[in-house]
Amino acid sequence: MEKKRIRITVAYDGTNYHGWQLQENGITIEEELNRHLSELLGEKIQVIGASRTDSGVHAMGNIAVFDTENRMPGKKIAYALNQRLPEDIRIQRSEEVPPDWHPRHCESIKTYEYRIYRAEFPMPVKRLYSCFCYRPLDMVRMQEAAAYLEGEHDFRSFCQTGAQVETTVRTLYGVQLEEQGADLVIRVRGNGFLYNMVRIIAGTLMEVGQGKREPESMREVLEARDRSAAGPTAPAHGLTLIRYEFL
Amino acid sequence: MEKKRIRITVAYDGTNYHGWQLQENGITIEEELNRHLSELLGEKIQVIGASRTDSGVHAMGNIAVFDTENRMPGKKIAYALNQRLPEDIRIQRSEEVPPDWHPRHCESIKTYEYRIYRAEFPMPVKRLYSCFCYRPLDMVRMQEAAAYLEGEHDFRSFCQTGAQVETTVRTLYGVQLEEQGADLVIRVRGNGFLYNMVRIIAGTLMEVGQGKREPESMREVLEARDRSAAGPTAPAHGLTLIRYEFL
Repeated sequence: MEKKRIRITVAYDGTNYHGWQLQENGITIEEELNRHLSELLGEKIQVIGASRTDSGVHAMGNIAVFDTENRMPGKKIAYALNQRLPEDIRIQRSEEVPPDWHPRHCESIKTYEYRIYRAEFPMPVKRLYSCFCYRPLDMVRMQEAAAYLEGEHDFRSFCQTGAQVETTVRTLYGVQLEEQGADLVIRVRGNGFLYNMVRIIAGTLMEVGQGKREPESMREVLEARDRSAAGPTAPAHGLTLIRYEFL
Repeated sequence: MEKKRIRITVAYDGTNYHGWQLQENGITIEEELNRHLSELLGEKIQVIGASRTDSGVHAMGNIAVFDTENRMPGKKIAYALNQRLPEDIRIQRSEEVPPDWHPRHCESIKTYEYRIYRAEFPMPVKRLYSCFCYRPLDMVRMQEAAAYLEGEHDFRSFCQTGAQVETTVRTLYGVQLEEQGADLVIRVRGNGFLYNMVRIIAGTLMEVGQGKREPESMREVLEARDRSAAGPTAPAHGLTLIRYEFL
């Protein structure tokens, strides 16, 4: 039987998962996909994810691939798999790709959104998908600070210590702020992200918005190449991986 | 000790509750408020709610009142109570009102939103607060149909049978549709709502949007004064009580 490679676009509510990657202490997205795909296709399936999102982080369009001998047409797999998956995971698209296509070995632009709900008290219907902030945030200052992050930089200061990567240089194509009613959305587009990078960017920009640091200080934070120069890591549940664009 | 009357604005995620009103088979919002208020204020508290929302329905601004002899300032109660409530219920405001003020005995305008997520597949991060619809919806037809509902009408066709009310005449000040990305929001403002009224309006408008009934048929639906003339009751989780305005 000939193997073919299938690419799936995966959306999930990260609230009840211990992140993407297989682990012993809790249920993960990868584990659920492997189990239900194996049952659906009648062979052992092991997906390869593009982004191994953290515990509590959400996705509207993460990407994974797997190989199968099953003759089910690529486009049908989304429908069949969604019948089996729990309702907090849903395939948005499935398609056959060339056998050597690998989600982490090709250039892509990833878009993340970090959502902040600004009010005096938390709002229950928003609590799972945004970070609550009762302190006033100066958006003009935050956007000014964000601009320093655009372009190619060494983002070591925005990388959780202990992460092992070959290089901490990344390119951000855009760091934009948008008001959506009481929500403030930080939208970050880049060619790659270090461990906790978007959450550290969000935590640092929130400090700028609260007047705890100056917009211009972002230059020094980048130059320091030291995690302690940046602000705190914002909570996971405010973060959503929106989409991948492959170049 | 002198009694004073406190008004609270209550927001909740209805997902895990059997609606507002006390009942034996499950936890309700009213029950949680009574219990935590009684503990906080050291006396038996019984709230009176403005809207007894159904199981699964959400609120950003429902209203309730209660009487207390406790001397805690009205405005402080929101802060103190939020420390005790589960995170899916949050007081947005608390204040003292005249002792005879009653949320169901005064004129008000209530705003509800019914949210529909339109896509080929459900989106996990939207599943709890919107109704999924994969069928195309013609918004122009829906808005045309909605216009027939504005004004003073006998809404008996849009009332769940079995509900006991003195009159089924209500006034809707606006039935508006708004696109928010892939979401279609039906926003209804009125002086009062019958049992399941907004959900039946949403279900009927969705049938118009799918071409199953004509916009002009809304006139006949109203005239029929019969629940069976209208469309299905849309699912509870798409509905949110947004706010009360007291006149």
